[in-house]
Amino acid sequence: MSRIAYVNGRYLPHARASVHVEDRGYQFGDGVYEVVLIHRGRLVDEDGHLDRLDRSLQEIRIAPPMARAPMRAVMREVIRRNRIEDGMIYMQVTRGVARRDHPFPKAAKPALVMTARALTPFDPATARTGVEAITIPDIRWKRCDIKTIGLLPNVLGKQQAREAGAYEAWLVAEDGTVTEGTSSNAWIVTREGELVTRNLSGAILGGITRRAILDLARAAGVRFAERAFTVAEAKAAREAFVSSATSLVKPVVRLDGQSIGNGHVGEITDRLIALYAAHMAGR
Amino acid sequence: MSRIAYVNGRYLPHARASVHVEDRGYQFGDGVYEVVLIHRGRLVDEDGHLDRLDRSLQEIRIAPPMARAPMRAVMREVIRRNRIEDGMIYMQVTRGVARRDHPFPKAAKPALVMTARALTPFDPATARTGVEAITIPDIRWKRCDIKTIGLLPNVLGKQQAREAGAYEAWLVAEDGTVTEGTSSNAWIVTREGELVTRNLSGAILGGITRRAILDLARAAGVRFAERAFTVAEAKAAREAFVSSATSLVKPVVRLDGQSIGNGHVGEITDRLIALYAAHMAGR
Repeated sequence: MSRIAYVNGRYLPHARASVHVEDRGYQFGDGVYEVVLIHRGRLVDEDGHLDRLDRSLQEIRIAPPMARAPMRAVMREVIRRNRIEDGMIYMQVTRGVARRDHPFPKAAKPALVMTARALTPFDPATARTGVEAITIPDIRWKRCDIKTIGLLPNVLGKQQAREAGAYEAWLVAEDGTVTEGTSSNAWIVTREGELVTRNLSGAILGGITRRAILDLARAAGVRFAERAFTVAEAKAAREAFVSSATSLVKPVVRLDGQSIGNGHVGEITDRLIALYAAHMAGR
Repeated sequence: MSRIAYVNGRYLPHARASVHVEDRGYQFGDGVYEVVLIHRGRLVDEDGHLDRLDRSLQEIRIAPPMARAPMRAVMREVIRRNRIEDGMIYMQVTRGVARRDHPFPKAAKPALVMTARALTPFDPATARTGVEAITIPDIRWKRCDIKTIGLLPNVLGKQQAREAGAYEAWLVAEDGTVTEGTSSNAWIVTREGELVTRNLSGAILGGITRRAILDLARAAGVRFAERAFTVAEAKAAREAFVSSATSLVKPVVRLDGQSIGNGHVGEITDRLIALYAAHMAGR
């Protein structure tokens, strides 16, 4: 079956899904995006993602390309046309097409593109497989709370991770604290059993999965703190993991080649994987 | 006459010049660009721009889309087809089209897009018109020496300048020094008559026009220093200007609403405008 993409009002075969070379997304990175997981036909945390998209748009002053209800309808139509039961939907909004010039164009109409693709359905055994992470300097801009398509530093960091045989790179601020991963939030469980992830600020993206995990932890009585932690703390931690819409709760068992805890998936991580699996299923 | 764009091997009418939605330039800002001025049919500092394009590509590990000679030929063909005598050529190289995933794709072929447009021919009187600048915090990433298409902070800064009635925003680092403008390098002439622009580092783009001005200053015996300067120094300066391929040497006569020097175009700025005009003409 061929993939279908939504591009500014039209449903197009993937191969013909194109945008103008003067779309500001292409020339300025002037746009934002979201990735929503589809689990057994269900959009996971749909409202959270759409709220964050609105916030990102507002922060860079792009008008929403359409109201919430038609947006949801287009998302469902993209999923339906691509016959996705387990997978993800990607949506991107840019400031639109205009003759290249830095300031906001007066007449441009926000551009909306959506694509979807299938992913291997959730499997508890795979979810429990630990991965490695490395640490690299965080060289990004100061508004990482905005989910922009300007992802070059993230791309370079992820590539560096892959070349080191790792799944993710944790980004380290000048003060030695971990901000987040190149496409995920970073978490540790301290020796004292406290779950820790960095507090919200311009230094990190407010992950929708991060938010869900904190809610699940609270409901389950898991002690947690939202604060910065150092690389040294992470290396001395009992457990570590990353979270994102598509990585879910992914155990990190080695950091910079050094085992975290006993080098196996930890107890709290394991519990959060189960809680998140139930959350995905809407239970 | 309709505009023509070069897109990956084809010369297309501007309206039909498009790229795939999964071009990494559109989804990741994974690309770099150059703008070259065309003055009386002549490409100004062509080698400098092509050298910098190569450097930018190398820094983010994108292979050049073609060798230097065919690149020059395409540039000339774009200029010819658009019948440009005075104007600019814009060229952008991205990592190409691939299914969305952060790491470098294995099979993608670098994408090359070029557009051109006419600009009002150089006029000494217009060139000597002073403009205003404002100062705003520099929130960009730490590799501003790479000329990437990830320009959202620059877009936001330029918009802020325009809304303040200014031509440019000067970006200020946390230590109070000016890095550069949102699309230009920043210069002052101190009370002691020294021409100053920031030294090269990850904090600024190594402007081709900046380089030409330094060479012209040296040849003309104008005393200069490449070093950081503060906003306070700039406000106390005798003269100020910005430089870029399309702004040339543009006098800044007000900074944050405060007159620079006597509020008129200064002596050294004036001299550099004349020297740069001769340089553009290939004299």
